[in-house]
Amino acid sequence: MNRINLFEANDFSEGSFKRLLVHDSPHMKVLNFNFKAGQELPVHSHDIEGEVSLTVIEGEGEFVGKDGATLPAKPGDVVISQIAEPHGLRAKTNLRLLVVIAPPI
Amino acid sequence: MNRINLFEANDFSEGSFKRLLVHDSPHMKVLNFNFKAGQELPVHSHDIEGEVSLTVIEGEGEFVGKDGATLPAKPGDVVISQIAEPHGLRAKTNLRLLVVIAPPI
Repeated sequence: MNRINLFEANDFSEGSFKRLLVHDSPHMKVLNFNFKAGQELPVHSHDIEGEVSLTVIEGEGEFVGKDGATLPAKPGDVVISQIAEPHGLRAKTNLRLLVVIAPPI
Repeated sequence: MNRINLFEANDFSEGSFKRLLVHDSPHMKVLNFNFKAGQELPVHSHDIEGEVSLTVIEGEGEFVGKDGATLPAKPGDVVISQIAEPHGLRAKTNLRLLVVIAPPI
């Protein structure tokens, strides 16, 4: 078992969200993205099979999908998206996001 | 994109931890286990390839591994374990855990 604490291992940066690689294997990639208020993960997609799960650990914002559709993003929210489906996030406050991709990109 | 809020979608139960299936596909299984203080996920393993990520959303406790080894479990902690490696959790307070398994069992 390997343990990492997201609050201790990653902080925030000016300019763009701060990315931490937590785990990478042939089965699963785990990342942590920290957004300062106003920062975003632009809507994007990749034409490959697989899914991404996005979990809000702390903070408020909105998930953004196809054609600009939004869903609230608050602590405890888990969004599952196909990797091939447009997905993104806009932070309204500082926001910590856990990202799990399988199979890994 | 499908969204679920763990605080709204799952609660706690007497006797044993309460399990919520968030997502299941050929690529990834996402679960939420809610433990009341004192409840546990007994140490276990399965002799198959793949990994499980365990993320503490809320609460305090300890992860338990091989030969009773422990690691702290607090909000923002992410533990990665091989599915074949012994892993478990004991909750000291009410605790919400996000579980992602890939490939799914």
